[in-house]
Amino acid sequence: MDLLKRKVEADGVVIDEKILKVDGFLNHQIDAKLMHDVGLTFYNQFKDEGVTKVLTIEASGIAPAIMAAMHFDVPCLFAKKAKPSTLTKEAYYADIHSFTKNTTSTVMVSDEFLDKNDRVLIIDDFLANGDASLGLNEIVKQANAETIGVGIVVEKSFQPGRARLEKAGLKVSSLCKVASLSGNKVTFVEEQS
Amino acid sequence: MDLLKRKVEADGVVIDEKILKVDGFLNHQIDAKLMHDVGLTFYNQFKDEGVTKVLTIEASGIAPAIMAAMHFDVPCLFAKKAKPSTLTKEAYYADIHSFTKNTTSTVMVSDEFLDKNDRVLIIDDFLANGDASLGLNEIVKQANAETIGVGIVVEKSFQPGRARLEKAGLKVSSLCKVASLSGNKVTFVEEQS
Repeated sequence: MDLLKRKVEADGVVIDEKILKVDGFLNHQIDAKLMHDVGLTFYNQFKDEGVTKVLTIEASGIAPAIMAAMHFDVPCLFAKKAKPSTLTKEAYYADIHSFTKNTTSTVMVSDEFLDKNDRVLIIDDFLANGDASLGLNEIVKQANAETIGVGIVVEKSFQPGRARLEKAGLKVSSLCKVASLSGNKVTFVEEQS
Repeated sequence: MDLLKRKVEADGVVIDEKILKVDGFLNHQIDAKLMHDVGLTFYNQFKDEGVTKVLTIEASGIAPAIMAAMHFDVPCLFAKKAKPSTLTKEAYYADIHSFTKNTTSTVMVSDEFLDKNDRVLIIDDFLANGDASLGLNEIVKQANAETIGVGIVVEKSFQPGRARLEKAGLKVSSLCKVASLSGNKVTFVEEQS
């Protein structure tokens, strides 16, 4: 997505060699038209896969996920950060480690909204180490549903997320692949045409 | 919005006289097409107000807010639940009390994304006591911006939120007004035609 790359170049802020701040259009302030086009692009990539649910994780995943779900005309489901007091038997859980924050949090999806007939497209704003998407895939497995793919807005290709997801058998589609944040600038992966 | 009322009637679950669970289409699983129409309805209501930003609060407000922002063709901004470690000078803060959870949390918006030229439409999924919208309005005031209105998906009209917002000078538009949850059923406010 050229529009997305141009946005990353124009508004992304390189904090250090691992952290790219995109809270001007993706993580805090959100470019709504861009998210519409992000959703449409995921739709075009996965439209023949019989998707029945789009699954993401609160909060930054919701905007691209709801836009994708609108194009698929299926529900969008977001995993909630669970607090111990809200844990019930009638839900699926996964532990997700954040390397940025160095914390592990539990997320949950109610078992009312995911079952063995579901074909799930996982969507997230960022792919770094892959823990969020792997956690969501664990939830899909608990429901005996199937993950048909993972759609990522911005992939940090210099981190192991993609390799870990592919090793788990997941098809990964990233709309923008960042090869490096060295030298205080964003270098994209050169795509073969 | 008749479609929204029918959805509340069909899929809303009355937990007690104060709590209506709508996580089948609004708070956990989200009906994307319905959110598209919710966003369009807010657009039609406020399109002559010169809206420059749609402001909401993570996580359940994001879906209706991003859909409204798409129709206005303006950015969607969501207030983040702040942790003490993330507090910086370059942000606006508000404390928001949750009566349901009996907790007070601090939310923040970076000062990069809101200034005195902004005309802000606040959007939230629920209006009960009004604390979330009042907190967002405090953030707008700190930025010397102007709140031109508050758009609510589901209003619990038997709670004091609307009166408190109107007392603060805010125009409130709710797409669905619940008069009562007594007798284990949803009764809507009868609208004057």
